[in-house]
Amino acid sequence: MSGVVAPGLEGVPIAESGISFVDGEKGVLEYRGINIDNLAAESTFEEVCYLLLKGSVPSESQLKDFESHLCENRKLRDGVIKIIRTLEPTGHPMDALQAAVAATGMFFKHNVSDPGYRYLAAIQLIAKLPTMVAAFARIRKEQEPIEPDHSLGHAANFLYMLTGEKPPEPAAHILDVCLILHADHTMNASTFSARVVGSTLADPFTVVCSAIGALSGPLHGGANERVVKLLQEIGTLDNVEPYINAKMDAKEKIMGFGHRVYKTNDPRATVLRGLADELLKSDGDNGVLKIARRVEEVVTARLGTKGIYANVDFYSGLVYNKLDLETDLFTPIFAIARVSGWLAHWLEQLEDNRIYRPRQIYSGEHGVTIARPK
Amino acid sequence: MSGVVAPGLEGVPIAESGISFVDGEKGVLEYRGINIDNLAAESTFEEVCYLLLKGSVPSESQLKDFESHLCENRKLRDGVIKIIRTLEPTGHPMDALQAAVAATGMFFKHNVSDPGYRYLAAIQLIAKLPTMVAAFARIRKEQEPIEPDHSLGHAANFLYMLTGEKPPEPAAHILDVCLILHADHTMNASTFSARVVGSTLADPFTVVCSAIGALSGPLHGGANERVVKLLQEIGTLDNVEPYINAKMDAKEKIMGFGHRVYKTNDPRATVLRGLADELLKSDGDNGVLKIARRVEEVVTARLGTKGIYANVDFYSGLVYNKLDLETDLFTPIFAIARVSGWLAHWLEQLEDNRIYRPRQIYSGEHGVTIARPK
Repeated sequence: MSGVVAPGLEGVPIAESGISFVDGEKGVLEYRGINIDNLAAESTFEEVCYLLLKGSVPSESQLKDFESHLCENRKLRDGVIKIIRTLEPTGHPMDALQAAVAATGMFFKHNVSDPGYRYLAAIQLIAKLPTMVAAFARIRKEQEPIEPDHSLGHAANFLYMLTGEKPPEPAAHILDVCLILHADHTMNASTFSARVVGSTLADPFTVVCSAIGALSGPLHGGANERVVKLLQEIGTLDNVEPYINAKMDAKEKIMGFGHRVYKTNDPRATVLRGLADELLKSDGDNGVLKIARRVEEVVTARLGTKGIYANVDFYSGLVYNKLDLETDLFTPIFAIARVSGWLAHWLEQLEDNRIYRPRQIYSGEHGVTIARPK
Repeated sequence: MSGVVAPGLEGVPIAESGISFVDGEKGVLEYRGINIDNLAAESTFEEVCYLLLKGSVPSESQLKDFESHLCENRKLRDGVIKIIRTLEPTGHPMDALQAAVAATGMFFKHNVSDPGYRYLAAIQLIAKLPTMVAAFARIRKEQEPIEPDHSLGHAANFLYMLTGEKPPEPAAHILDVCLILHADHTMNASTFSARVVGSTLADPFTVVCSAIGALSGPLHGGANERVVKLLQEIGTLDNVEPYINAKMDAKEKIMGFGHRVYKTNDPRATVLRGLADELLKSDGDNGVLKIARRVEEVVTARLGTKGIYANVDFYSGLVYNKLDLETDLFTPIFAIARVSGWLAHWLEQLEDNRIYRPRQIYSGEHGVTIARPK
């Protein structure tokens, strides 16, 4: 027993895991041993989900079955739509998602000790999260929710359910890549929370509900929302240099730069930077992408030697903005991607489970008493 | 950096905390330095909430103000009642509670960086949880929810909101003591989950929602439900000895006995054993309390020397049963009590916060590739 607390458990290993791997020095991220660049170029989010849950790349027919299962499970029950209709429209979509996931779990009998059930529940959750987010996003604007379209892939269908229009291929592709890039990232607060709650043998809807809660915290998800705010504040290309220099001279943090793990380029940002070029063509003179590129140049010139570079939030924020997605949907989209990682960690946790019950170091008094006349 | 994983983080300290203290060898539990026996005899759940949140016993006027704040915050918005009406009536009340808490959070603007807001939010959550549990418990039986009665204390009002009848004083008192006994218990999976989610600066409704999730797992909350099942299976006083002996000869676990921390009498069970005497008077020949006492005698005779005694779940299960509470409300009642501890830990976490981001030990492959014809 150690008597020293590591704040935030930094450096303390809480599990052996074979799901993802990060080399922060070299800027490498792998899922099940496959480099993220390779997956972004050759795979789809659906295939990555299979890879994370099952441990290896599916055969063609396995992938087809998996995609069919996802499609079949996209639709929400009428009862769930009814619940989403009653939610407060001004509330945050992350809270709406948490409520919708908890409420959906009430319709199922859970059998957490059965690996077959666990796998099916994982498919249900991955399939339904986008439908929940899209339904709330429309209902709060007094628009009718749109039923999933089985002819569309996971990312394209999500965009379709938001707008009712089939998205152009580049938009669907770039969102698909964003989902791949956000699917897992070793241990972090939401994944850890999924493992802690999962270790009590709580049902998977409850597990995901808790992880959504952790992701909703501004120290975890949410950085990409603030990137958009930064770019909007800057406003024009000419304003980039004075704005950023003033902020950095005042030692303020620039949103979307630096990462706790990556001391070189965030490999996810590198992938998105490449894809953003396609979108850049349609950017006006003071377009958000041009401003962002200039921000990156200015910041990297000053901080790159210190290992501080644009991170995935910087690029996902501006890509989502360019796709006309509402800013408060950015973190729910993170959840739509990361749910695959949470569930892979949940499955892994249950293979060799032990309930998390750490220790505390008591720092208070002893022997206080209350005595009072009765 | 240690390279060894402690399963379940057993023995690993994750925080310094001045909220509660357990001595498992001596069978001692203290809140803020005050022995649980002392609190059970001299305090109320409301006062214990103040003690846990604020760190010391309130003055008479501080307690009065605190009780008023709790009373004022008991009522649910119409919008929340409407949501509870839409929840699936056959679902588990813990999932309903999770959904209701998440949905309620959507009505508020959260300012987690403001200690004043944090304290008020804690009061709101402690006040509203019983109303949510009672509302769902009635609505699922097609009964109208009952508005809180401000003339009643926290425990009595909960029983009133379940039935519409003011409870007899002994019933209200014993539930109040049960709430006191379950209010905090150092680090455990739900409290830890509250700290992990809280460390992301997520809002307090989200934090509590996640902790409810962890408590819902059968390895955490829920043991007292299974105690009732055991007593029902035994059925008669004469059947106790053969039933228990057969189960123990087969090396099966007897629900409600033994505790990970207490190697002697669980001090909470000791308090409840004393209070159950009052209820025992109204017990028939084969009443559940008489059967329970006999079970305790038989098990303790065989296992007491090994440090295995009746725990708090054993007694709370049968007390709740004797109070005619529905079995699947036992864990929600645990949540109604423990929310005070979760929030005290949340407040403590935020005083000196660092996001939980532990490490994993990667156990998978490297250098796998996908290459396929486009």
